[in-house]
Amino acid sequence: MSVTRLLDDIRSVGRDPRSGGYYRPVLSPSELDLRSWFVGEAERRGLDVETDRNGIVWAWWGAPASGSIVTGSHLDSVPGGGAFDGPLGVAAALEAIDVLRARGVAPRRSLAIAVFPEEEGSRFGVACLGSRLLTGKIDPDRARALTDADGDTLADVFARNGIDPAHLGRDDETLARVGRFVELHIEQGRGLVDLNQPIGVGSSILGHGRWRVRVQGQGNHAGTTAMTDRADPVVAAAAMVGAVAALARETPDARATVGRFEPFPGGTNVIASAVSFWIDARHPDDAVTLALVSRVDAACAELAALHGCTVELREESWSPTVGFNRDLAAELSTALGGAPLLGTGAGHDAGILSEFVPSGMLFTRNPTGISHSPEEDAEDADVDHSAVALADVLQGMLS
Amino acid sequence: MSVTRLLDDIRSVGRDPRSGGYYRPVLSPSELDLRSWFVGEAERRGLDVETDRNGIVWAWWGAPASGSIVTGSHLDSVPGGGAFDGPLGVAAALEAIDVLRARGVAPRRSLAIAVFPEEEGSRFGVACLGSRLLTGKIDPDRARALTDADGDTLADVFARNGIDPAHLGRDDETLARVGRFVELHIEQGRGLVDLNQPIGVGSSILGHGRWRVRVQGQGNHAGTTAMTDRADPVVAAAAMVGAVAALARETPDARATVGRFEPFPGGTNVIASAVSFWIDARHPDDAVTLALVSRVDAACAELAALHGCTVELREESWSPTVGFNRDLAAELSTALGGAPLLGTGAGHDAGILSEFVPSGMLFTRNPTGISHSPEEDAEDADVDHSAVALADVLQGMLS
Repeated sequence: MSVTRLLDDIRSVGRDPRSGGYYRPVLSPSELDLRSWFVGEAERRGLDVETDRNGIVWAWWGAPASGSIVTGSHLDSVPGGGAFDGPLGVAAALEAIDVLRARGVAPRRSLAIAVFPEEEGSRFGVACLGSRLLTGKIDPDRARALTDADGDTLADVFARNGIDPAHLGRDDETLARVGRFVELHIEQGRGLVDLNQPIGVGSSILGHGRWRVRVQGQGNHAGTTAMTDRADPVVAAAAMVGAVAALARETPDARATVGRFEPFPGGTNVIASAVSFWIDARHPDDAVTLALVSRVDAACAELAALHGCTVELREESWSPTVGFNRDLAAELSTALGGAPLLGTGAGHDAGILSEFVPSGMLFTRNPTGISHSPEEDAEDADVDHSAVALADVLQGMLS
Repeated sequence: MSVTRLLDDIRSVGRDPRSGGYYRPVLSPSELDLRSWFVGEAERRGLDVETDRNGIVWAWWGAPASGSIVTGSHLDSVPGGGAFDGPLGVAAALEAIDVLRARGVAPRRSLAIAVFPEEEGSRFGVACLGSRLLTGKIDPDRARALTDADGDTLADVFARNGIDPAHLGRDDETLARVGRFVELHIEQGRGLVDLNQPIGVGSSILGHGRWRVRVQGQGNHAGTTAMTDRADPVVAAAAMVGAVAALARETPDARATVGRFEPFPGGTNVIASAVSFWIDARHPDDAVTLALVSRVDAACAELAALHGCTVELREESWSPTVGFNRDLAAELSTALGGAPLLGTGAGHDAGILSEFVPSGMLFTRNPTGISHSPEEDAEDADVDHSAVALADVLQGMLS
């Protein structure tokens, strides 16, 4: 086998044939297909598979034990995502075990592959939800009450999939099994292309958060309501989107994005009564991110008033900047012949876990530098090399 | 019976309990419920019910014949609509027959109540679709290929509901049966409130159309893509929404609305790759509407270029300004003791039919003046008076 061949097996799952993009929301039919694929591949390798009480799937080489080595990633995707964001780390982990066995490595510690649910937060709005639940970084009551676009609660969706929502939350026994965590992931930028390197080591993750903005106006008929009589929340919210981009551009190294914008009720011949939109904001300095959001909040209030609307901005999630464990990062780099250290703007479960256990990341070169898009890419040679690199770093930890 | 009691029977159908708004898209379960309700009420009155080949339901008092008198309206709604827009005209028509019978009127011509499908265009994007099909104002091939938000074609949806899509299109035999058409409708403005009158007569319908704007940018990761490297179609489209409102405000008596705005793929941590939004534009002078849209088109092209995106603006429907038949309007006003004449900004099937047969409208007072919103309202006394007024005007035509 090889990583490219493993990924070939799931190439059509959750793929929109028009755009070429993937949509695999957590516990949707497509993500469940990927979970079955993972379980099948793990069992074919003689690994013991179990799902913990937060919906994380674990495949064990050796008995589950305190202080084991863990690798893995996620199988869920954003809407319109690429083929590698998540599955590459899972497939590389499976293949790395084959590589280690072929090398005759006899591990002195157990190794697990973990598959985390809802890393993207595309279904329930909170990214890295599985690792947040495992580590107690999100209140289980809040998690249970999260809803998807259909209005289904996380509690209901988990229950329907055999995960008892009553048992969600911090799981010290499972967490204690993670001695070290290494996540391999497609790079979501052009750092390795510019350095002409196939693989890099994560140094830090930009602090980032999500805020939901709700603009309330007055719904009415598009034909009968004079322009001057309107309190149109779409016009107000559109101005706010402009302010978000302008304020982010004024703030060096900041990123702020509105990717989701929902007028209610959403009819063509209806002046909307309300708009919800979401802001994703990030900066290496957490204080700058929060200051930017606070400027956005003030601008939104001003623009709402200007258009006769009201507005509320509410934090949905917040992850401070994470510096990965320096000793582990140095060790990973050395094991890979001096692979370069790279920061990233993207959140990952490794970032959540790093507060609790030494955690690190490997990044695989992405020729387009684009991610969360069908244009995300990786060359076959780099994809297959990912498993060898992961095996190289795991081998030292297991021996 | 009374109109208020008839409407009570359908009060809960398609109602969102959170917002209080109705959503009854054509041939959805809720609109089908209303059709069954209508058929039941018509049959209880001994009317002969038939559905024609364009999906219009006809309930006949007397044998279908050339030059008959027709009244009616529609049962579909916009998303988040009110209780009266459509069903009031249908319920008032049923009740008007009871009133005429109680008065002992023996009609010398046949009377039909017509229920038109997809008046709002909320499901397939073309308003007054039923009357456009009947009169040949839309090409049946185009109609068959229209799709709803799930990607289902009109042809498939009609076929699933027993309407053979092969037979859609201009129907001269059915059209010839319509000697005159009178549609009663909730007023979608405050004209009658200001005049302190319970009922008014339509004089004209503002020309109006719908245009779809598609903005294409570059999808990417919200965390890893610097602000300066972006071609974000949401930011570009938001600026275009601002331009639409600004240009409409600069044009006296014009109305332009964006009520539907859809980023693709729509993930919170995803820079969208494309946005579609829809413009509803209206003005009493058709040349001004079209000039406004052409200025919007130019502004969109400029804004797209500014943000590194491309844009395409495409007409989805266009209805020129309609002046209702003056003699009929005068007759309706006289029959109602000098009811005031009112123009309206809203499109109606009566507007489409008026090009082919003498057509008129009655409007029932709406205390909020708001429509296409749960706040649309009517007092019980005015609702019940609607049937009496409709009976008054029909009586003269039938005798």
